[in-house]
Amino acid sequence: MKALVYKGPGEKSWEDVPDPVIQQPTDIIVKIDATTICGTDLHILKGDVPAVTPGRILGHEGVGTITEIGAAVTTLKVGDQVILSCISACGKCSYCKKGVFSHCLGDEGASGIGWIFGHLIDGTQAEYVRVPYAETSVYVLPKEVTPELGCVLSDILPTGHEIGVQYGAIKAGDVVAVVGAGPVGLAAIATAGLYGPSRVISIDLDANRTEAAKKFGATDAVVSSDADWKQQVFALTDGLGVDVAIEAVGIPATWQMCLDIVRPAGHVANVGVHGKPVELALQDLWISNITMTMGLVNTNTLGTLLKMVAQNKIPAAEFISHRFALGDILEAYDVFGRAAETKALKVILTA
Amino acid sequence: MKALVYKGPGEKSWEDVPDPVIQQPTDIIVKIDATTICGTDLHILKGDVPAVTPGRILGHEGVGTITEIGAAVTTLKVGDQVILSCISACGKCSYCKKGVFSHCLGDEGASGIGWIFGHLIDGTQAEYVRVPYAETSVYVLPKEVTPELGCVLSDILPTGHEIGVQYGAIKAGDVVAVVGAGPVGLAAIATAGLYGPSRVISIDLDANRTEAAKKFGATDAVVSSDADWKQQVFALTDGLGVDVAIEAVGIPATWQMCLDIVRPAGHVANVGVHGKPVELALQDLWISNITMTMGLVNTNTLGTLLKMVAQNKIPAAEFISHRFALGDILEAYDVFGRAAETKALKVILTA
Repeated sequence: MKALVYKGPGEKSWEDVPDPVIQQPTDIIVKIDATTICGTDLHILKGDVPAVTPGRILGHEGVGTITEIGAAVTTLKVGDQVILSCISACGKCSYCKKGVFSHCLGDEGASGIGWIFGHLIDGTQAEYVRVPYAETSVYVLPKEVTPELGCVLSDILPTGHEIGVQYGAIKAGDVVAVVGAGPVGLAAIATAGLYGPSRVISIDLDANRTEAAKKFGATDAVVSSDADWKQQVFALTDGLGVDVAIEAVGIPATWQMCLDIVRPAGHVANVGVHGKPVELALQDLWISNITMTMGLVNTNTLGTLLKMVAQNKIPAAEFISHRFALGDILEAYDVFGRAAETKALKVILTA
Repeated sequence: MKALVYKGPGEKSWEDVPDPVIQQPTDIIVKIDATTICGTDLHILKGDVPAVTPGRILGHEGVGTITEIGAAVTTLKVGDQVILSCISACGKCSYCKKGVFSHCLGDEGASGIGWIFGHLIDGTQAEYVRVPYAETSVYVLPKEVTPELGCVLSDILPTGHEIGVQYGAIKAGDVVAVVGAGPVGLAAIATAGLYGPSRVISIDLDANRTEAAKKFGATDAVVSSDADWKQQVFALTDGLGVDVAIEAVGIPATWQMCLDIVRPAGHVANVGVHGKPVELALQDLWISNITMTMGLVNTNTLGTLLKMVAQNKIPAAEFISHRFALGDILEAYDVFGRAAETKALKVILTA
């Protein structure tokens, strides 16, 4: 089969590789119908994720049709079309039993981390993929949801929802700010509305992006290059700051922005993937009564979000900015890699 | 009357001052029956809290008998014996209406912070004290609870309970570690048991203190000067770390200790008052699914804790290490200030 193979920092190739085979009785093999590219894949290609070794097939999102099932699989059958979660969960360990699939202790991932596709095992940017722990890691796609919308459910919608909205504990009437209007920030905006906030403020350096965020449910847009951006945010509250600030960039400056606008007793939910430490002003914050959260998605709400997408209660189609044939994946990487210029959000690759 | 007056960094005096008078219709005047000294008072005396100006009467804990009530007070009467909360709450602002009394917006405290006794207004280390917002800030002492036990309820028991145990979200079966076995750490230990943890580990540099913590409900003691202290803690878990780590010291090293022993998806609850920033390793922590909390006590559980103390379900009497007459407060400060040597926890001053 053909697959997108990481060849070392800065190098990738769409090339012939052996077809995957069933290795464990809980595995399935899936023929990919649709897949996509994540910002994390770009990080891997820069060499930022050393656990990914040359020869690895990238990708952790996608929808496919089952072509083969392992001997232990009883609730899935050949021909079922399924969404692949970016998190593989054994279903049996102490973390899985609590729904904390992100920290699954299953033995596929040496690091004990539930994200293994395109990381510790071969991923979804390929014609076929072996899916471990299949029955606890895939969701059958209902007829109302297209494969390309299914791709949005593999990672970004659950990430924005669970790590931004749920960890941020958004309640009815809250004023919510989302710093960063990339795909995951927009996913937080798109799912925040399920909890009845009074305002959802999109904050980004790029005015085009904050305006576009309104299609996802943002009620207000603040451009963070404005000298008075903070005053603009406070003016959208009762003067005391936002109830929930969601960080969806992953750099120290945007983390600090969240702390600067959150009100006493508010929540800061970090969704961004950080590469550097930050200074935390505990001498000021100890008295703040704020809660700070962070984490990798569990996809334990994927099924719920799938239902909401099927009912058109989440504007999932707005995420899809570009479409390519799977064989044109190198061109898709180029477009996605120049997102500031191409306005790419999710580029969908269809077999 | 006589009162303990802050005279500037390093200086205090037990001296004659004017009796307090009713200033607002919601005020009461209380004759102090028992009061105590907090670690915060020592910080003030060092000059660490610049909002406290020379001439201020110190103290924010105590029990007293009402001698006068303001015109608006209807639910308290002269002669009632009451516990004074360390937090004064107007009861009317948006924070008070949510039970977040620590951030009361009432106009007694210019900073908008609920802690004002011995800080922004005169405090409880005196023969009489004016109590603002009385009906929303005091609790009538039941006959089963002595005034000296009431002093433990003004601050430390609610602080350990609300900011350590409740913010830490201790659940049945959890393994809890409390770093620091001073009064507030012990208050967290003493109230953690209400939630059914499987273990409560006391961690401190001083083996005498961790052993003494067992009187408050600690099941295990780890001395943090041991080279293998961390392995000792992990050995008391399933090998993955503690569910909840409570910081009750207030320095960067003990904050980091909590992060070092908390398991993925666990909680770090900061109770300590910090004077310096810390470095937060977000490049490692973003994927940890931990929750970090911090804050000033609301005393919104004071009434509940009072009931539990009355029923002997919290070992409150263990906190009282020394007793003095109110007029001997300078000697009491000396004993409390040398706590490492005198093993002082709460020194009670009785009128």
